Amino acid sequence: MNIVQIIDKKRRGETHSQEELCFLIKEMMAEEVHDYQISAWLMAVCINGLNLDETTWLTRYFVESGEQLDLSKVDGVVVDKHSTGGVGDKTTLVLIPMLAASGVKVAKLSGRGLGFTGGTIDKLEAIPGFKTSLPSKDFIKQIQKIGVAISSQTADLAPADGKMYALRDVTATVQSIPLIAASVVSKKIAAGAQVIVLDIKYGRGAFMKTLDEAKELAFTCREVGKRLGKTISTVISSMEQPLGLAIGHTVEIAEVIKTLQNEGPKDLEKLCLTLGAAALVGAGLCETEQEAEGRLKIQLQDGSALAKFKELVKAQGGEVEVFDDLSLMPQPDRIHLLPAEQSGYVAGIDSLKVAQAAKELGAGRMHKADPINLGVGVVLHKKVGDQISEGETLVELYAGDKNVQAALTLLEEAFTFSTVPVSPHVLVDEIFLSTEKEPVA
Amino acid sequence: MNIVQIIDKKRRGETHSQEELCFLIKEMMAEEVHDYQISAWLMAVCINGLNLDETTWLTRYFVESGEQLDLSKVDGVVVDKHSTGGVGDKTTLVLIPMLAASGVKVAKLSGRGLGFTGGTIDKLEAIPGFKTSLPSKDFIKQIQKIGVAISSQTADLAPADGKMYALRDVTATVQSIPLIAASVVSKKIAAGAQVIVLDIKYGRGAFMKTLDEAKELAFTCREVGKRLGKTISTVISSMEQPLGLAIGHTVEIAEVIKTLQNEGPKDLEKLCLTLGAAALVGAGLCETEQEAEGRLKIQLQDGSALAKFKELVKAQGGEVEVFDDLSLMPQPDRIHLLPAEQSGYVAGIDSLKVAQAAKELGAGRMHKADPINLGVGVVLHKKVGDQISEGETLVELYAGDKNVQAALTLLEEAFTFSTVPVSPHVLVDEIFLSTEKEPVA
Repeated sequence: MNIVQIIDKKRRGETHSQEELCFLIKEMMAEEVHDYQISAWLMAVCINGLNLDETTWLTRYFVESGEQLDLSKVDGVVVDKHSTGGVGDKTTLVLIPMLAASGVKVAKLSGRGLGFTGGTIDKLEAIPGFKTSLPSKDFIKQIQKIGVAISSQTADLAPADGKMYALRDVTATVQSIPLIAASVVSKKIAAGAQVIVLDIKYGRGAFMKTLDEAKELAFTCREVGKRLGKTISTVISSMEQPLGLAIGHTVEIAEVIKTLQNEGPKDLEKLCLTLGAAALVGAGLCETEQEAEGRLKIQLQDGSALAKFKELVKAQGGEVEVFDDLSLMPQPDRIHLLPAEQSGYVAGIDSLKVAQAAKELGAGRMHKADPINLGVGVVLHKKVGDQISEGETLVELYAGDKNVQAALTLLEEAFTFSTVPVSPHVLVDEIFLSTEKEPVA
Repeated sequence: MNIVQIIDKKRRGETHSQEELCFLIKEMMAEEVHDYQISAWLMAVCINGLNLDETTWLTRYFVESGEQLDLSKVDGVVVDKHSTGGVGDKTTLVLIPMLAASGVKVAKLSGRGLGFTGGTIDKLEAIPGFKTSLPSKDFIKQIQKIGVAISSQTADLAPADGKMYALRDVTATVQSIPLIAASVVSKKIAAGAQVIVLDIKYGRGAFMKTLDEAKELAFTCREVGKRLGKTISTVISSMEQPLGLAIGHTVEIAEVIKTLQNEGPKDLEKLCLTLGAAALVGAGLCETEQEAEGRLKIQLQDGSALAKFKELVKAQGGEVEVFDDLSLMPQPDRIHLLPAEQSGYVAGIDSLKVAQAAKELGAGRMHKADPINLGVGVVLHKKVGDQISEGETLVELYAGDKNVQAALTLLEEAFTFSTVPVSPHVLVDEIFLSTEKEPVA
């Protein structure tokens, strides 16, 4: 067996054996194959695909290439949630205290933003003092104590995936459902939770552009999880318009707090309840989604989810005073308003353009080391289906010291209008609850 | 325009613009793109292809990436011949004196052997004193003076192709008809001849495994040539069994001399006449193939082709005494005979296995810097269709100091037999003569 034969096999559209994928990953980690060989193989995979067996083996060898978090000392069922990335997506921060308040344990490793997607870890840094990097020991101890912890992802989980991802980004080989599935599932398995809920986004502001692609990715992730002994539930949700109203860091934390106070945007709340219900059913705490959603709603109404979030902030060194005074978080230099130029109905809000506008203002980064401005961002006043009158505010821009005009132009382009009523977008398209694990691998 | 967008386009199976291919080659030569990006693009091309326009542009930018030999000072039409590589293929050395004796000028740049294919330059080194590396000035001067010169390929012709080829070899991206066509045609164009004859091999001992692939490659080369203002004729010939009887270096030179003495193996002579006729018609010296073949046969019969080869050897410093005493060339340590174990007919001789046997004896190299033994090789006594009696010699092994047993085993495996008569293989499958150039690019 040698690397050129393995690449050639995939070029011809043939199927890899388990041994070949094991060899490929081992040789890559030992730096016995060259980057140009890996990238040729990645392109062959992008075009010719991997079947479910191959994807499962790849995922397994990704996992085995690094450390695996051992959560066996945590009492109860540990759940984890992952989103494929969207615009204005702050569901994690609403969801994890809600789940912990419901009685499951939540072990959440999150990333930073890159390109047009925001990162949960960056958002948390808007809370003064919040420690986003916990050593594994403290991470586990905190879960055991208060039921929830969140920390930035370490490089040691599934490093083979990290190595491949770095190449995929610069060789136009990101768009591959099996590679995305192996990447997502391997990191979640290495992170140690028993129950995993994936929020798979599709639409203009997501990696998956169509509902069909999203369904295929969801199916692949569930199947791979099942074969590797993990309960993975999937929810497919639309990124045709941003989620909720706020896009940025301080503004998103503010929206999280509002949502936990039971006063959040309805679409954000709905998605959090859906994802949360999937987790509670997966963990065996509830029999049905309806039961689970009811239980979660109570956490929002009686303040227990908000209390759990405060507990989390406090446990990780954050100033809990922000809950009473949002201005303790980084603030913009000034606020601009974008008024509607016509009356009618909002027909569309291009997520990608909104994200680009926020990035222009300083809320996003192109490269990992770029600084970001936590105080800037965008707050929508209208969403798809809303009626508007000429002159009414469409968007507030929380601006810093740069690119206000570019951001305004992007936001103007983001909105499309209709003179006749428009139905709001369908937010959640498919929910697949897994309650059993059927390990076959 | 950036490299990731270009790769992405080919991943999606779209067509490149001329500007994109120009950009790609320029950036590659300036080392502004990484090898892992080039190899991802090469794999996308292998799977999704290049159309004729794209292949023509790529060929053009390969040519423009380096020097171009200026043969304008040579009087008369300059012809060049190239083979895609085979086993026992010594046609070049029979052909070029024959053509020069017929009145065309021959500028031949050749390569060394690698893998299972022999190299004309290596073969010439069996002639003591023969200088295989001529500076351009001397090369051109010699063509002007005696009508023919042969030299090893310099790295400065189409270096962009050389760069890509080095990557293709280690990333399983060799098998691509447009990339092979661009590689072959660019080097021939840069080498400066006006009339080019390509011998495209197919079968077990060739890169093209099927006749259909060979036809497609031939068509692509002719079309690209035409669009770039070159007359390219193509001949498709079989590599299902070795060409002629000798495979090695000294043994092949001996067979060349015998063929120029009008006593060569019929298949080798036939292919040389076919290729030579294509060159003479392409150069406008003859109207028809029949006329051209007749003229070339006369060069073999009256000794003028042999005299021209002697003149060539002398001009390049080789000892002409070898023509009277073949033992002045490197000799084997000993000769082994492989007898037939049954009576019947030869049904097949696997070229690849014969080549591997010669390589085992020391006639081939795996890496560019490997030494080779010029004295060793294989001489077939029987070819497909020949009748044999048990105990009769099938093959002579000219052995050195190693691997005789391995070579014998490979040769035993190479032969298959039949108890009923077998038709000899068809040698030449398709001849396409180009007599006009129709530059469109």
